[in-house]
Amino acid sequence: MELGARIPTRRQLLSAIAKAGGTAALYQAMTTLGHAAETQFAGPPNLSGARKGASVIVLGAGLAGMLAAHELTKAGYQVRILEYQGRAGGRNWSLRGGDSYTELGGATQKVGFQPGNYLNPGPWRIPHHHRTLLHYCKQFGVALEPFIQFNHNTYVHSSTAFGGKPVRFNAAAADFEGNIAELLAKSVNQKALDESVTLEDRERLLEALRGWGMLDKDYKYVSSLRTSGHRGFERPPGGGVNGAPIASPLYDFHDVLDPQVWTSMAFFMGHEMQTTMFQPVGGMDMIGKAFARQVQQLITYNAKVTKIAQDDKGVSVSYQDTATGQTATAAADWCVCTIPLGVLGQIDTQVTDEMMAAIKAVPYSGQVKIGLEMRRRFWEEDDYIYGGHSFTDQEIALVSYPNNNLFGDGPAVLLGAFARDLGAYRLAGMTPEQRIETALQQGSVIHPGQYRKEFMTGASVAWSRVPWTLGCCARWNEDTRKEHYQTLVAMDRRIVLAGEHASYVGCWMEGALLSSIDAITRLHKRAMEA
Amino acid sequence: MELGARIPTRRQLLSAIAKAGGTAALYQAMTTLGHAAETQFAGPPNLSGARKGASVIVLGAGLAGMLAAHELTKAGYQVRILEYQGRAGGRNWSLRGGDSYTELGGATQKVGFQPGNYLNPGPWRIPHHHRTLLHYCKQFGVALEPFIQFNHNTYVHSSTAFGGKPVRFNAAAADFEGNIAELLAKSVNQKALDESVTLEDRERLLEALRGWGMLDKDYKYVSSLRTSGHRGFERPPGGGVNGAPIASPLYDFHDVLDPQVWTSMAFFMGHEMQTTMFQPVGGMDMIGKAFARQVQQLITYNAKVTKIAQDDKGVSVSYQDTATGQTATAAADWCVCTIPLGVLGQIDTQVTDEMMAAIKAVPYSGQVKIGLEMRRRFWEEDDYIYGGHSFTDQEIALVSYPNNNLFGDGPAVLLGAFARDLGAYRLAGMTPEQRIETALQQGSVIHPGQYRKEFMTGASVAWSRVPWTLGCCARWNEDTRKEHYQTLVAMDRRIVLAGEHASYVGCWMEGALLSSIDAITRLHKRAMEA
Repeated sequence: MELGARIPTRRQLLSAIAKAGGTAALYQAMTTLGHAAETQFAGPPNLSGARKGASVIVLGAGLAGMLAAHELTKAGYQVRILEYQGRAGGRNWSLRGGDSYTELGGATQKVGFQPGNYLNPGPWRIPHHHRTLLHYCKQFGVALEPFIQFNHNTYVHSSTAFGGKPVRFNAAAADFEGNIAELLAKSVNQKALDESVTLEDRERLLEALRGWGMLDKDYKYVSSLRTSGHRGFERPPGGGVNGAPIASPLYDFHDVLDPQVWTSMAFFMGHEMQTTMFQPVGGMDMIGKAFARQVQQLITYNAKVTKIAQDDKGVSVSYQDTATGQTATAAADWCVCTIPLGVLGQIDTQVTDEMMAAIKAVPYSGQVKIGLEMRRRFWEEDDYIYGGHSFTDQEIALVSYPNNNLFGDGPAVLLGAFARDLGAYRLAGMTPEQRIETALQQGSVIHPGQYRKEFMTGASVAWSRVPWTLGCCARWNEDTRKEHYQTLVAMDRRIVLAGEHASYVGCWMEGALLSSIDAITRLHKRAMEA
Repeated sequence: MELGARIPTRRQLLSAIAKAGGTAALYQAMTTLGHAAETQFAGPPNLSGARKGASVIVLGAGLAGMLAAHELTKAGYQVRILEYQGRAGGRNWSLRGGDSYTELGGATQKVGFQPGNYLNPGPWRIPHHHRTLLHYCKQFGVALEPFIQFNHNTYVHSSTAFGGKPVRFNAAAADFEGNIAELLAKSVNQKALDESVTLEDRERLLEALRGWGMLDKDYKYVSSLRTSGHRGFERPPGGGVNGAPIASPLYDFHDVLDPQVWTSMAFFMGHEMQTTMFQPVGGMDMIGKAFARQVQQLITYNAKVTKIAQDDKGVSVSYQDTATGQTATAAADWCVCTIPLGVLGQIDTQVTDEMMAAIKAVPYSGQVKIGLEMRRRFWEEDDYIYGGHSFTDQEIALVSYPNNNLFGDGPAVLLGAFARDLGAYRLAGMTPEQRIETALQQGSVIHPGQYRKEFMTGASVAWSRVPWTLGCCARWNEDTRKEHYQTLVAMDRRIVLAGEHASYVGCWMEGALLSSIDAITRLHKRAMEA
């Protein structure tokens, strides 16, 4: 991502304010100027007064398409949605017992989960600052519950540290912070930073390092009840005669520097990964279903788009009914196309060469998710883990613990893999059965006692093999953004693209919705001018 | 707290293992040896075979007393509970609309909260490792929901930093980590730490600092889209034409070193403060009520204990009915006394001088909690804060956001103060009305636009003025532990004390329960030997 162009101007302004009014005025101004804004969502689009009879065809009944149809219908447009699948929601999807799923290559999985259990192959968590999605969830009556994103008590596993054994996140993180604090305090006390830090700030810094990093009076990070208060005890405090706690020994500094430790710590500070997060009660597809209820009568299912044509008067979309094989054409004044780029690039689409180049320029990621149904919640009962993720450097990348029905009895579904990059590539090349076996083998490293013993059934989705997306989501980089992004989001005569790929919030439902609002707002403006 | 005595022995053992089998064997052994145990709870006490007719009188129907009564009854003892209040649960307590509460000094508050809203004046959150409490919650059918302890998006406020304005936790924490990382990287690159860190670890450390601290290729922490990815954006990523994000400027290093910043960061790493946490659905007193259902028929309410006598044969407890004024005596073979120490010290109790000295040696803390009912959830709707705490150096110490009914419409109750030490002392000295006014004034610094405007009604509990505890909970220190703890928890002939004050998990329900289990286990053993 590239740095925005407005910073210098704003900074000059703030600098002038600081000179005139001091620090308090500066921070006041920063607040007033919208410092640390959290969303580009400014409410539902304000569309109104569509010309009588004006029509829009929407391609794709995912969230972007359904939101466009919903808002355009409200504005007075005649809207129709063509959807490839027999189901609305797109990547907003949950697999449940009884579902059947056939991937590219032909392998079919019949999902055997118990009633109430599910795997969310696509989106599975909602950040608190995804205001567009939260707005429509509330408006459309989708009940949300906390998604436990951050859990101090999960495991961090590296095959090259801690003897290859998983360690608790709190212990590893505490030791990382303690060692960092001790080393920096040592530098300060050795006068190594006297030129960089004022005398007053050196004192503040030492106090901070001692407090934050749990250093002793000599600025050392040592095994003690104090450090155990962050990293966990050998024997925790209890009651009565034997209530006194016992301190735990520290991990080796070399191990604590393992990338699995600090990437886990940094992960939780990521913009989209920060708490508080949410999930719909009952599975992620509750959102897609709620959107679908708003636009149900507009959707033609099983419609495979084969050609998108346009001229000065309108748009004409040819499609085939995948159930009957019959072909048809749908016409409209305008088109909102939310078809994933990898699929769209293979359709005969009448856009400029620049637009087609943009469509073809953006590769899609191919994550693999695997759901494993276990007989009981051993992670809760035996390991005291309620939600959150145990990260590993194995191909599965993580084991993530369900956030629904905490403390429940009976079977529950673990996310046994959320593989990316090479790990995903390898898992996608396996049969569904081999994927499960790999997930069991690698997950057993985290939970050796119970993983295979409690396993009942599993399901996997390799996004590179999903027929209707050919990938998980768009992976822009700095170069493709510069060369193609504005072309991709611009209206191409009567066609405008929308979806997470037409946003800077790639791979998130929020990106799809913000893109959709921006696209239909511009479409409406163009339609009013036409 | 003092360091346990077992560490050297265990370390010697581990050291021997490491020498013999290397690192993998070491970590295997640490796991086998119960490294980082998380609880002293080993299941419900295994009592059985009480002598026919053996009896126990339990003083206090808080959690410790009710658990003792429940388990002793199961073991075959004849049990009776005397309770001072007209309600079971003790400090496990919720105030709701319609409740009336009179504090020492005579001030009476009639609580005006809307139906469904509540303030938990005492315990309000349950750590995942409080296994005893979680065990009995499940056994007694108490439904739990997540307590959002850690929320990156709350505020940190210091009157002496950031111009006195609240800043978001994520921005302050990211800048703290970034500055720490930059300074330490500088030291490493200036060779200041060459004697402390091996060459290999210096490389690992630099990589870690760059990744964890969001440093650029020159190991600088600067305003950029990358650092904004941790601290928040000036304009966050969006969709469509204007989707590109804009980086936010950094805070001043001096401000970032403010103790409010690093104490907040360290707070969340505290043993009892780590995620995942829980609360009962419907208010904390759902736990007390569930315990009370198990022992309801054993409780005599409104019984003010005036004398506790014992001899070689048994225990005799004199009490007065606070409703009728009538006096009575209850006799039993044994006594489990859970009366808070400040109250117990004023009762004529027949124990050794050493025990009485122990009872009188431990001061109680005097926290003040204030609940403020607001017309709407402006913290969610306007500030995107769902649960968690905004910390301040003002007397109120924090504003904490409700975890029940997230996204709900209508009034909700904020925790407008959780004052300790001097702040609590000052608030306790005020009338209930003055406390509310102070909470509104100080909370308005965090939420200036809405606090007074949305306020409806409030309630406060100053624990130093609670008639039945005379304080919030026991505050042991290293000296009192050494001199008095083992005396306090030891059986004094036929009397044994239990409660959070008789544990190392002070101020937590878990401490009360673990203490109770330990006390009745020893009582049972003594009774069987007698």
